[in-house]
Amino acid sequence: MDVDECRRRFAAVDHAHLATTGDDGQPHLVPVVVTLVGDEIFFAVDHKPKRTTALRHLRNIAENPRVSFLVDHYEANWTRLWWVRADAEARVVAGGEEHARAVAALQERHRPYAVLPPTGPVVLAGVLRWSGWSAAA
Amino acid sequence: MDVDECRRRFAAVDHAHLATTGDDGQPHLVPVVVTLVGDEIFFAVDHKPKRTTALRHLRNIAENPRVSFLVDHYEANWTRLWWVRADAEARVVAGGEEHARAVAALQERHRPYAVLPPTGPVVLAGVLRWSGWSAAA
Repeated sequence: MDVDECRRRFAAVDHAHLATTGDDGQPHLVPVVVTLVGDEIFFAVDHKPKRTTALRHLRNIAENPRVSFLVDHYEANWTRLWWVRADAEARVVAGGEEHARAVAALQERHRPYAVLPPTGPVVLAGVLRWSGWSAAA
Repeated sequence: MDVDECRRRFAAVDHAHLATTGDDGQPHLVPVVVTLVGDEIFFAVDHKPKRTTALRHLRNIAENPRVSFLVDHYEANWTRLWWVRADAEARVVAGGEEHARAVAALQERHRPYAVLPPTGPVVLAGVLRWSGWSAAA
């Protein structure tokens, strides 16, 4: 699957799976609601109070900015499976112009964010490598 | 979400997302067709010829057995989201009794495997920690 097709499929979905790994070497996974702009992936950190463990991915990103996003299509008919992966370098942004730009992009893409803007930090992740696979290809 | 509910939801889905991280610290993600037996997760490595990069997760597991699996439910109504995560220790098994046991469990759970048994190695991953979250809880 070529890079343009990877971008197209990634942009068409609402949410992705994010993998991060901090200094302890334990991979961590969490679903995130994403927006792709060019080769940059944005997601917001939920502004609702949460246990500290829920922010493990932010601690991991601070320790190791290399992350990976996966979107995929699954159905019982295995001839129609596909997935797209984006390896990226991420940083957490809590305010300023970049924060505003990411929030605006998320609000434009996701209706719940248009109604209730995310107020917490955002993560900006620059894609370093696209990979994709399709059973039908 | 308690551990029993995590197990129940994980067991009910066909596929999960697997995160692995090798020595280079780059998290890697791939969808896998899974079966949960007790607190052990099995998946088979596709026996079709593939590029070496497709087996990155096996190399990562050899370098670092700590992995994470995620299953989740997404829909446009964000009040119905949930996810379950299993942090686990994985090993690759290419033959013998454990391989046969995992293949049998995969065949019982997934019809395509009953028709065409997986012939490659299997991964057995012992769950170390269950986590779950539901927007409705």
